[in-house]
Amino acid sequence: MIILGLDPGLGTTGWGVIRADGNRLSHLGNGQLKTDAKEPLPRRLSHLDSMIAALMADHAPDTAAVEEVFVNTNPQTTLKLGQARGVVICAAARTGIEVGEYAARLVKKSVVGVGNAEKPQVHAMIQRLLPGVKIAGADAADALAVAICHAHHLASARRVKVR
Amino acid sequence: MIILGLDPGLGTTGWGVIRADGNRLSHLGNGQLKTDAKEPLPRRLSHLDSMIAALMADHAPDTAAVEEVFVNTNPQTTLKLGQARGVVICAAARTGIEVGEYAARLVKKSVVGVGNAEKPQVHAMIQRLLPGVKIAGADAADALAVAICHAHHLASARRVKVR
Repeated sequence: MIILGLDPGLGTTGWGVIRADGNRLSHLGNGQLKTDAKEPLPRRLSHLDSMIAALMADHAPDTAAVEEVFVNTNPQTTLKLGQARGVVICAAARTGIEVGEYAARLVKKSVVGVGNAEKPQVHAMIQRLLPGVKIAGADAADALAVAICHAHHLASARRVKVR
Repeated sequence: MIILGLDPGLGTTGWGVIRADGNRLSHLGNGQLKTDAKEPLPRRLSHLDSMIAALMADHAPDTAAVEEVFVNTNPQTTLKLGQARGVVICAAARTGIEVGEYAARLVKKSVVGVGNAEKPQVHAMIQRLLPGVKIAGADAADALAVAICHAHHLASARRVKVR
């Protein structure tokens, strides 16, 4: 099963693709998609949309996941993030795959074992779980983390089903 | 010139299409697109996306416009609106047309003549400017109003250019 993790943002969207064979994970790709802050919003959103569409075509994931969002106290920031997040989720869902949402604490717990893990711990665990991975940046790391969380979640859901 | 006005929302998105020949306006259509609150967010967003894509295909607008958003004090509401708004703006911009944004006050000023006009005044003026229009609801009215504002704006921009 091929899993796409996404960390949406208007300026930078992180992505990570992994393969899950039962409990065995392997890394297929990760990166960061950027839009130009000098462009008007509609163009930035449609650029983001076409970059995600290209990712979907390249990797043909079976399922995708995003982190539930940290709602900023600045409403303008929240609106901006929301707009990018809507486009990213929609571009993944448009192909018909499911898009899971996980709380940040659950992602950390799933990757590191504790819900209040620090970023360096999360990075170190991603390196261990996906040997040889070169992480493109902080947003790509967050995307890989949510992909790993989704993989664990799906694996336990399958185990429950099998019983 | 065919102009699409949009009033984005996750539950209900208003739309209105008008034709502008210089200063003469005519109504081509309006309505309200709804998504099912019982569906998961990714499915609602992709449903919204495909409904806007269908509108774009049906009416082939030359340009589109949305109102600048009223940022709610509830961050979860702002996030939800932002997600829907991102999808709606993106679905219009994807075809390559420009999507204008206008402050609510400017829309009211453009339609009624004053920036603090009440909803019934806006509705009455839409009826006068677009004879025979049947407005599908409050969100469709807001969409028609922003389309009219966009038409006025484009007409004055053209006049400026001609001089």
